[in-house]
Amino acid sequence: MSTPARRGRPPRSEHDGADRRRAILTAARESFAAQGYKGTTMRGVARAAGVDAALVHHYFGAKEDLFLAALELPLDPRTVLPTVLAGDLDTAAWRLLRTVLTLWDEPAARLQLVAVARAGLASPAESNPLRDGLLPLILAPLAERLPGPDPVRRAQFVATQMIGLLVARYVLAIEPLASLPREEVVAWVAPNLQRYFTGQPQQEG
Amino acid sequence: MSTPARRGRPPRSEHDGADRRRAILTAARESFAAQGYKGTTMRGVARAAGVDAALVHHYFGAKEDLFLAALELPLDPRTVLPTVLAGDLDTAAWRLLRTVLTLWDEPAARLQLVAVARAGLASPAESNPLRDGLLPLILAPLAERLPGPDPVRRAQFVATQMIGLLVARYVLAIEPLASLPREEVVAWVAPNLQRYFTGQPQQEG
Repeated sequence: MSTPARRGRPPRSEHDGADRRRAILTAARESFAAQGYKGTTMRGVARAAGVDAALVHHYFGAKEDLFLAALELPLDPRTVLPTVLAGDLDTAAWRLLRTVLTLWDEPAARLQLVAVARAGLASPAESNPLRDGLLPLILAPLAERLPGPDPVRRAQFVATQMIGLLVARYVLAIEPLASLPREEVVAWVAPNLQRYFTGQPQQEG
Repeated sequence: MSTPARRGRPPRSEHDGADRRRAILTAARESFAAQGYKGTTMRGVARAAGVDAALVHHYFGAKEDLFLAALELPLDPRTVLPTVLAGDLDTAAWRLLRTVLTLWDEPAARLQLVAVARAGLASPAESNPLRDGLLPLILAPLAERLPGPDPVRRAQFVATQMIGLLVARYVLAIEPLASLPREEVVAWVAPNLQRYFTGQPQQEG
């Protein structure tokens, strides 16, 4: 990616710093897309961007921070989720759903989120960066808040409902679902989501 | 697509017929992908395949039949769904879920279905052939079986749960969900699906 020798030197100005950040993000996006989340290393991204690995850490922190920066998500699930899930667990599904739908209903955020979802769904299952990079950052704080004996399983069933709702309403934009008022969606979906939070499996109908 | 003049003549042999069917399916796939379901016409497919429109109808029936043939689905939702949904509506979610998961758990069918899902999810929302061509063939017989006042809405919420489950378990292959025994998945998801079938929305948690 252009003049690696120049990029290898420490930044001399604001402008140089912005160039380097951009080069790192471009290299990161290419690597996450081609090698997946697990196959991407900070060292490999640094090499592709023509900078020192320490600079990648300096600008972006850990690999998961670099991944979130590359996705340009409008918020960080690691800080938002614990806040939303704090408080009464028996009504947590309503709060989570309102927060997520309010975010996706906002046009600019939706544009970015749908693009991320679409790219992630098209990636091969063997090295899907959406599953390996983003989902754990969402499911871990969720599982931490859910009752045993198997909170990870509960969190994954929550994911089945949330993924399907987001795909149907925003990615596929099925009508009339895509145009339903948010509170109507919440009233239908929240009780089901809540059952995954705090309910039990049921062998027969 | 090669020698339209020859393809324009009526079939002279089994071999010619097979060639024509293949040419029609190829043209149909290209059109559904490029123009979407609504933008595809039998006449346009016939023209691209170098055959008469009557021959497309003769081989494949209506546009929705041609679409299903182009997808190479392992079964026809228009015949399977009414059968599965016949009988006690209060346990229909368990039957539907078992039928769908048994199908997707079968490796050869899954390969084809995941390919269809992946291509559909990557298509633009404006003219998504999965949404406009396939989903109505699934949601119409479902809505027909569900109670009022708004069975179409119920069917779409059923879709949110089913799409999310299929994406999470088979397209993204999130573990351990992807490896859970089928009956464990059914026991978690069926009561929620059943609520969309016969339950009610709930304003607050």
